[in-house]
Amino acid sequence: MGKLNELTAVDAAAGIAAGDFTAEDLMADCLDRVAARDNEVEAWAYLNPNYAIRQARDADAALKVQKARGEKPAPLHGVPVGIKDVIDTVDMPTENGSPAYQGRRPQADAACVAALRAAGAVIMGKTVTTELANIAPSKTRNPHDLDRSPGGSSAGSGAGVADGQVTLALGTQTGGSVIRPASFNGIHGFKPTLGMIPRSGVLMQSHTLDTVGVYGRSLEDLALIADVLSLPDPGDAHSYRGSRAPLMPGLRAEREEPPRLAFIKTPAWPQADDEAQKAISAFVASLGETCVETEMPAPFDDILSLHATVMAVEDLAHYGPLLENSPELVSDMLKSRMAEAEKIRGDDYVKALLAREKLQQDFAALFENIDAVIALSAAGTAPRGFETTGNPAFNGPWTYLGLPCVSLPLLTVSDMPLGVQVIGPFGADAATLNTARWVERNGTS
Amino acid sequence: MGKLNELTAVDAAAGIAAGDFTAEDLMADCLDRVAARDNEVEAWAYLNPNYAIRQARDADAALKVQKARGEKPAPLHGVPVGIKDVIDTVDMPTENGSPAYQGRRPQADAACVAALRAAGAVIMGKTVTTELANIAPSKTRNPHDLDRSPGGSSAGSGAGVADGQVTLALGTQTGGSVIRPASFNGIHGFKPTLGMIPRSGVLMQSHTLDTVGVYGRSLEDLALIADVLSLPDPGDAHSYRGSRAPLMPGLRAEREEPPRLAFIKTPAWPQADDEAQKAISAFVASLGETCVETEMPAPFDDILSLHATVMAVEDLAHYGPLLENSPELVSDMLKSRMAEAEKIRGDDYVKALLAREKLQQDFAALFENIDAVIALSAAGTAPRGFETTGNPAFNGPWTYLGLPCVSLPLLTVSDMPLGVQVIGPFGADAATLNTARWVERNGTS
Repeated sequence: MGKLNELTAVDAAAGIAAGDFTAEDLMADCLDRVAARDNEVEAWAYLNPNYAIRQARDADAALKVQKARGEKPAPLHGVPVGIKDVIDTVDMPTENGSPAYQGRRPQADAACVAALRAAGAVIMGKTVTTELANIAPSKTRNPHDLDRSPGGSSAGSGAGVADGQVTLALGTQTGGSVIRPASFNGIHGFKPTLGMIPRSGVLMQSHTLDTVGVYGRSLEDLALIADVLSLPDPGDAHSYRGSRAPLMPGLRAEREEPPRLAFIKTPAWPQADDEAQKAISAFVASLGETCVETEMPAPFDDILSLHATVMAVEDLAHYGPLLENSPELVSDMLKSRMAEAEKIRGDDYVKALLAREKLQQDFAALFENIDAVIALSAAGTAPRGFETTGNPAFNGPWTYLGLPCVSLPLLTVSDMPLGVQVIGPFGADAATLNTARWVERNGTS
Repeated sequence: MGKLNELTAVDAAAGIAAGDFTAEDLMADCLDRVAARDNEVEAWAYLNPNYAIRQARDADAALKVQKARGEKPAPLHGVPVGIKDVIDTVDMPTENGSPAYQGRRPQADAACVAALRAAGAVIMGKTVTTELANIAPSKTRNPHDLDRSPGGSSAGSGAGVADGQVTLALGTQTGGSVIRPASFNGIHGFKPTLGMIPRSGVLMQSHTLDTVGVYGRSLEDLALIADVLSLPDPGDAHSYRGSRAPLMPGLRAEREEPPRLAFIKTPAWPQADDEAQKAISAFVASLGETCVETEMPAPFDDILSLHATVMAVEDLAHYGPLLENSPELVSDMLKSRMAEAEKIRGDDYVKALLAREKLQQDFAALFENIDAVIALSAAGTAPRGFETTGNPAFNGPWTYLGLPCVSLPLLTVSDMPLGVQVIGPFGADAATLNTARWVERNGTS
């Protein structure tokens, strides 16, 4: 067959359901690509090809039975998904990118993994994460240029989907860990509203920030997998409590009029490369009068440090015990971050939370008049070398606000991909995907 | 007429509605009592007798018009209510018990005051609060013994209702500021579920703890006024989002079986006086097998310090700017509290919030099997002298958990009142009042 590994998830699922090819055919092509490339890309923390093929065969066998019964296949039947290695899987190790968790075998699947299995997905393997989903770089390399970072912390998920090794993948974002790798690797990435995807069984880093996100090869891929994952998490105080519009119909709905868009440079703008600034500015210009540059009132100018305060304090609360008990298992990079976090006073953290409430109200008011915000997905293309996973300054603000973000692989700077970020109203994930579709169809770079 | 000031709110409202007496008659009796007693009790931060009488006359005039139209009077028509002076009133000063706010005139009523006016209540005046609803004692004295504290911070509200100067009153609780004064002054007090009563226009001390509560002369008084106040507050992230059962029908509902009760000594138990321990133990014994002493798992044993951490850090976040700008307007007592709070690290505050989530789950599980918790309302009777407003250790834990609490004036120790506290499930305020009624009818001291 060949090249099934490059299909979108929507086409892969449709092809399997129609009997055009099998889940095993698809997995075989993915594994061929892994064999050809992964000694260089190194996207996988755990991948057992025999087990992956066996799961695919099981999916094919189950499909035969279902067809005989006249049942419709589940939405992801037979589609391979890579799971970031901070997300628990009962049948594979989950090591959180840290020697402190070497060989760890969870007792149960994370709620999001269980949902994927229930939707027929084949859990192909565990993708590389940076140490504890934090900033110390991983071994993974960017498939567009092996001398560059794939970003982090969802390094293997971003690189694996971009390199054709796996059709879909899960990531998590606390700073910029879903959207930045999407931008660096030139794929579609989606960080939904805070708490839209259940977090039970996912490594906790910052409970008011951590968000599970998804990677795919089109906006429809994002909707396909995120629809399966959009579930309340009763045990999680930050689970999204509002109504949940189905994403695929929302994405596909025809618009009568162009959306109203706000281009927000954000306080991270001076950190962006000249080329990235030019590329997004030209893109925004191509959208014409639908997109108006907009400034936000204070304390938006402090949003980078507000996000950093919340993240640092919560990271320390969650990782402090590990640092205390096993300092030798923690990287110097994370240690020095935590040492800084120890200096942050409780009331400064509270003020950062209260400022968030104010900013969330400001954005709710903005979204009464516009459909989405347009921003850079990253400060530039993937950085050369592996000393850093890249600058998350264009992501932290939106994570802090809990807003849904889509990265569209629409820009190219010096032959490397760069994303356009579409940010929507809290809880309006379906509408945000729809707006992103309009942006993808109408903007030119 | 005479002694109308001693009526319950339910009887006062019914009497006015029936034309047995007027709002002016009632207010005149309240003002007579104030004139006779308040040079000693000092319950009022602001009270203009002429304005109070004028409002009562206006209520009487409005009632005539309503009757002529065949309209039913509003539930609190003509009933005097005292408002703790941390709650904004557009027609009276709101000084928050602090020289920093001397002469302050709010631009608008707090949402809860507006709701009272809409329900026909006569806003009689502003009751004394401790400095910024914190711990530095106020001038108010306990009507049962003028050499004792009325408690705090809702000092004037508790003393005013107890002394027959006003029929109902509003208080606020962040540590033990509603339930403790109820206990010390021998009246009924109710701190509803966190966020049940809107906080817009109320001085913010600790946004995850502050709760508006009510005082009255019976459980039905509490339901009468709290039903008027139970409203969502869209601008408040901590407003209660669940369904709201009407309180009066819930309180009055007949039970088929006795409730299941858990007596929890709490980690504050060693701080209680011997006499208080004996009194509540005898009371619990009188309830027989319906009430079983219960212990809670860790981290319940740390709950006093967990609450203190949250309160200190949030107090500092909200009051820090005042301390910084105008240290000369802040008491030494509050200053030293805030100096301690500055030492609390962000991650310790976060851990105290996370521990709360765990404890809330533990209590939710407990409340699957029981109707309410029974505990002391205070560590003993009102303390002699005015160096302290008394120990809030029996209140902070429940404020921290956000649970509805009722104080019933059922115990007497050395001729001074002491409350029995009934604590119910989160959001189940109506059921909690109903359980409290059973406890009031069936327990003996």
